[in-house]
Amino acid sequence: MAFAAKIYVSLKSTVSDPQGATVSGALSQLGFDSVKDVRVGKYITLHIDKSSQKEAESVVFNMCEQLLANTVIEEYSFELQEL
Amino acid sequence: MAFAAKIYVSLKSTVSDPQGATVSGALSQLGFDSVKDVRVGKYITLHIDKSSQKEAESVVFNMCEQLLANTVIEEYSFELQEL
Repeated sequence: MAFAAKIYVSLKSTVSDPQGATVSGALSQLGFDSVKDVRVGKYITLHIDKSSQKEAESVVFNMCEQLLANTVIEEYSFELQEL
Repeated sequence: MAFAAKIYVSLKSTVSDPQGATVSGALSQLGFDSVKDVRVGKYITLHIDKSSQKEAESVVFNMCEQLLANTVIEEYSFELQEL
């Protein structure tokens, strides 16, 4: 079975996000006031072939823990959809 | 009214994604076979104050068009949730 995974990685809320602050400043300069708490993370999509949804979930979890997210400073979530 | 926006920006499927290719190679080296089509994009979250959901949607749309996404090579989608 083939699955599409969408993985969202973002900095933990306690970690300073200079990229988010820069985007926030740029939005403000463009006239977008009323915007705050801008945080910039990663949005990773991939396809995976596994025999069950449970197995695919387990593999995506391991990929996040080992490579896709730095769990010291980042948190992540993901969604799986069967294709 | 305050809204939380989640914005997903990714390269168009016709555009080459070297970062995705690098992640794909790294996953493969770690033993994660059966993974393909890895694409890496941006996941932007922010809070916005507007008087209606429609107005907030319009503002987020404009932010994406003007700054958050490079619409020549990237596509985006977003979700709004009232806080």
